Amino acid sequence: MGGAGNGNGEYLDPADRRQMQLEQVQVSCNRAFKNVPFYRNRFLEAGVSPQDITSLEDLAKLPFTERRHFSEHYPYGLFAVPLRDIVRIHTAPGTAGNPTVSGYTLRDLRVWRDLTARALRAAAVTADDIVQIVLHPGLANWGRDYKDGAEALQASVIPLNALHLAKQIMVLRDYKTSVLITTPSSAAQMEESLFAAGINPTQLALKTLVLVGEPVDEAQRRFLEERLHVTTWIHYGLSEIPGPAMAFECGEHHGLHVAEDHFVAEVLDPESRKPVGLGEPGELVLTSLTTQAFPLIRFRTGDRVRVVPDPCPCGRTLTRLEWLPERIDDLMVLQGVKIQKGQVVLRLKETLGHEPSVVHVGVEERGTYRGLEVRLGVDERLFSDEIKELERIVRTAAFELRQEFGVPVEVRLLEVSGVNRES
Amino acid sequence: MGGAGNGNGEYLDPADRRQMQLEQVQVSCNRAFKNVPFYRNRFLEAGVSPQDITSLEDLAKLPFTERRHFSEHYPYGLFAVPLRDIVRIHTAPGTAGNPTVSGYTLRDLRVWRDLTARALRAAAVTADDIVQIVLHPGLANWGRDYKDGAEALQASVIPLNALHLAKQIMVLRDYKTSVLITTPSSAAQMEESLFAAGINPTQLALKTLVLVGEPVDEAQRRFLEERLHVTTWIHYGLSEIPGPAMAFECGEHHGLHVAEDHFVAEVLDPESRKPVGLGEPGELVLTSLTTQAFPLIRFRTGDRVRVVPDPCPCGRTLTRLEWLPERIDDLMVLQGVKIQKGQVVLRLKETLGHEPSVVHVGVEERGTYRGLEVRLGVDERLFSDEIKELERIVRTAAFELRQEFGVPVEVRLLEVSGVNRES
Repeated sequence: MGGAGNGNGEYLDPADRRQMQLEQVQVSCNRAFKNVPFYRNRFLEAGVSPQDITSLEDLAKLPFTERRHFSEHYPYGLFAVPLRDIVRIHTAPGTAGNPTVSGYTLRDLRVWRDLTARALRAAAVTADDIVQIVLHPGLANWGRDYKDGAEALQASVIPLNALHLAKQIMVLRDYKTSVLITTPSSAAQMEESLFAAGINPTQLALKTLVLVGEPVDEAQRRFLEERLHVTTWIHYGLSEIPGPAMAFECGEHHGLHVAEDHFVAEVLDPESRKPVGLGEPGELVLTSLTTQAFPLIRFRTGDRVRVVPDPCPCGRTLTRLEWLPERIDDLMVLQGVKIQKGQVVLRLKETLGHEPSVVHVGVEERGTYRGLEVRLGVDERLFSDEIKELERIVRTAAFELRQEFGVPVEVRLLEVSGVNRES
Repeated sequence: MGGAGNGNGEYLDPADRRQMQLEQVQVSCNRAFKNVPFYRNRFLEAGVSPQDITSLEDLAKLPFTERRHFSEHYPYGLFAVPLRDIVRIHTAPGTAGNPTVSGYTLRDLRVWRDLTARALRAAAVTADDIVQIVLHPGLANWGRDYKDGAEALQASVIPLNALHLAKQIMVLRDYKTSVLITTPSSAAQMEESLFAAGINPTQLALKTLVLVGEPVDEAQRRFLEERLHVTTWIHYGLSEIPGPAMAFECGEHHGLHVAEDHFVAEVLDPESRKPVGLGEPGELVLTSLTTQAFPLIRFRTGDRVRVVPDPCPCGRTLTRLEWLPERIDDLMVLQGVKIQKGQVVLRLKETLGHEPSVVHVGVEERGTYRGLEVRLGVDERLFSDEIKELERIVRTAAFELRQEFGVPVEVRLLEVSGVNRES
């Protein structure tokens, strides 16, 4: 199958790859143990040392890393190299109070650029393409990674910018975009806006739609493909790692190939934390192999996946995962941005100056619109004769939440008394 | 004078530089004439051909390029290379209806990265610095250029992201930022927020403040330096060229050195369009020397400058300009984003669905706040019993304008009748 032997690790013999993974896991654990007190302490508490890892199965001896650990070691506590060797510092909205900070060395940046370029190449993107990147501001770093990856393929890139939907549609049409990279919810909104503007997608140059940030089911996918006359390709990434394309679809469109030359992927039962049977659904747990600045050992992603067991007809030997919609944890995912209810409450508290009476925090869906929905109870502190003042509070709260998470937000007041506050 | 002979063209003998400029102007005019119908037609109309340029003074024979030409040749009409050779397409809010589109080849990107790195190096930025970039979304491309430039110096870069002011202050403090790149108005807002948050700037690692997007007077500069305990450095750029640091301050802090190895700068009387006397104020007109994708011949910037006539004690032989606050044209400049009244009216018309009764479009300044101020006359079409509906219109209009220009906007209704509409 085409592309074999191009030396980029996609077509390695699986046994050879496992041997390389083991060697890299040892290097990665050593580095984390030596340079990051958090990992050293966790390893010691668990009674393991890097030397105990003599097979990939030994990974199971190592403790997990969770999202809250990022917040607890804010800002630079998980970096494994001195700041002097860091060339980029990335901030993502965290899910536990503090932002999630990650760092890259120059080599890390090159690895991410190459991984993103590889994923785009698998989606048949070439130097002849015009690639438009439309992501919410909270995914600015992914925007940068896609820009770098597509530029590495010498495509013409229209990078992430602050244009609103109508202007993005104008760019899509006038600039003759052939590849659009966006979240499934934005893609649905753009589809709607295109038709509303009387633009027939067959008049566009668009042929490829790369969907990131959220899993997509077959029906959504078929809808977008038929309405927009495109082929869709799904990419999986994590803003915490961070990188947008650590698993990607090939031309078979059946499961996402994991970049096993840079990560070990485990699929675990979230209760027992033991591996599930081949092809069974479980939580994706990732260990980085090549990251210098920000190693991750057994990071619990909260994403649900299952392995596609058969070898892929495309010839790539990288394991395929099916990315399932439901999450393991209670995070809401909006436009690829992960949000926890507690963060919303915390932010409201800062805005209001007191503990808010939060009645509901959830995801609101209307047609193609998906946004954060917040209902605030009007209690004594909020209550005011002045409707204007209440409206100001609602506007301010919505504005602050939008700024915080970079997703659409609607805040509504609920004039109830004695309502039970959700914790 | 340190740095002489480092081969980057900053210290060339002026006579040698003029000779190189002439050769490059000839190449640039030839390329524009050959590949861009707009330039060919303009040259022919003016009765000049590239061969008529035999001295730098002959530039005066060539017609000017104005902002409206970008809009008239939207999207790709001014590109001098085929799309296949373009690796980045940048959109800036235009000032005449259509966005301003510019393109870069791989070599163009390298030139901009090197120019930005050089300007930062002149501000003493090194691999030991932590560089935070805080710019409004409308300046996303400058954000990318500064990221690339600072990364080229191997500094640690916190790139432009969607965090709001309070979070930027948190990053400034917690990430130990040593170099902050922002607009003068944002810097003033950050200064205010810092003190409001009870953070004493002496507790910060901040030492360098790079000011972009707007000219700064001595009083503002001294205020920021004293309050923040930093040294300030001014950079000049154009989002239309596009690039943020085509003129930069050295350690003398007296005038901005123009990148004369990449541009010819003329200072012209805006009426007679003839060169002003040495040191007299006039309009800055730029001709690009090395740009492949998007050549600019005699571009009227609308910025007022004057040449600092004496040689610079720093040893750089690049001409110095003083950047004066008043503009030649009627553009408003907010956070580095250029806005024309006509654009605001156009956008309001799209939002309202009819010609708006615009009473006033201007810049509002309150303390450190600088935003776009729009007063809408309430005429029959807007008038409604429903205060709620009016408020919705105001909110929508403000939201749309913010989205369009990426700057703070306040829209107010003016309940007057028979008011004369400004055109």
